[in-house]
Amino acid sequence: MARKQGSHAGITGPKVQDAALRLFAQHGYAAVSMRQIAAEVGVQAGALYNYTADKQSLLFDLLRGNMTELIDALDAAALTGTPLARLDAFTRFHIRFHLPRRDTVFLSYMELRNLTDENFAQIAELRRAYEDRLEDILHDGVASGDFTVPDCRVATLGLIALLTGITNWYRPGGRLTAAEIEANYCTLVCQSVGARLA
Amino acid sequence: MARKQGSHAGITGPKVQDAALRLFAQHGYAAVSMRQIAAEVGVQAGALYNYTADKQSLLFDLLRGNMTELIDALDAAALTGTPLARLDAFTRFHIRFHLPRRDTVFLSYMELRNLTDENFAQIAELRRAYEDRLEDILHDGVASGDFTVPDCRVATLGLIALLTGITNWYRPGGRLTAAEIEANYCTLVCQSVGARLA
Repeated sequence: MARKQGSHAGITGPKVQDAALRLFAQHGYAAVSMRQIAAEVGVQAGALYNYTADKQSLLFDLLRGNMTELIDALDAAALTGTPLARLDAFTRFHIRFHLPRRDTVFLSYMELRNLTDENFAQIAELRRAYEDRLEDILHDGVASGDFTVPDCRVATLGLIALLTGITNWYRPGGRLTAAEIEANYCTLVCQSVGARLA
Repeated sequence: MARKQGSHAGITGPKVQDAALRLFAQHGYAAVSMRQIAAEVGVQAGALYNYTADKQSLLFDLLRGNMTELIDALDAAALTGTPLARLDAFTRFHIRFHLPRRDTVFLSYMELRNLTDENFAQIAELRRAYEDRLEDILHDGVASGDFTVPDCRVATLGLIALLTGITNWYRPGGRLTAAEIEANYCTLVCQSVGARLA
């Protein structure tokens, strides 16, 4: 008896995404074929097209899915309090979100070059929306006199690079726990904007 | 008359490196063939092996060459003065070195996965040697009471990610000049370690 397309797609769709993420991160988007992704999932190459239009759509869906999940999670966290409290909370949020998503972070930097112009523009817009949330915190801190930041846009881009860079070197079981690293980065970030720490 | 191997290699060697760098950065190491590199240089595929043993050697030579050039340039700069003066000078040095080397920075992060274990270990050792020079400045600043840094190793990795991240977004002719961006980053970096700025 043929399986229903609906339930089949519901299980296999995420498997396709996971396989594509793993293979793209390991070998690079350009070097991975739809046939390899199908083999990794355990379906026929032709069957893959039930779940995705093409390889470009797979890459775009991975990057867009990551950005919308990130923005939704930040908005759900609803950071409140003084600019310093919000900056501290943003720092912890960003680290906690990205630390377990090393492959996705890697892909988000490395494979932007392989997005079509239209898809790139959409990802860039989502990134900007996320960055703007940090930039708002910095502007508020400057306005309240708590922060000293010559250019909030530059500081935003710098701090996001600082924080996301953790995924390049952090390994579970290393010298410091994730909580210790988080505390270290909170000090760095809050001091970087000239805040006086207690 | 056959051209002399020596002079030929002297001109073509750097061309091979340039072509490999450009193609690896654009398409990814795994997706680029020696044949494509030869075509980009304008030599026969077989002739490429006069200049390099294989594709792995090309990648390794690019990454190692970049790291030794970086360390030599920093040591030649011979930063002196207070820890704060040295940190400010290091920040400017790092930005000036990396800003014109966008493709190399990209490759240095993205293609580490494609180095053999032995080659990776050598690049990691060179990176560590460079990072140690910044870490020494931070330790000196903590010892002199000028800096407040809970963990100098974590701060080092964070600050290098912060600074190198500029290559992800900087474009000549943008809103800010390279000098203005440099000044912004100096403020961020020096404040991040808790230094009191004038």
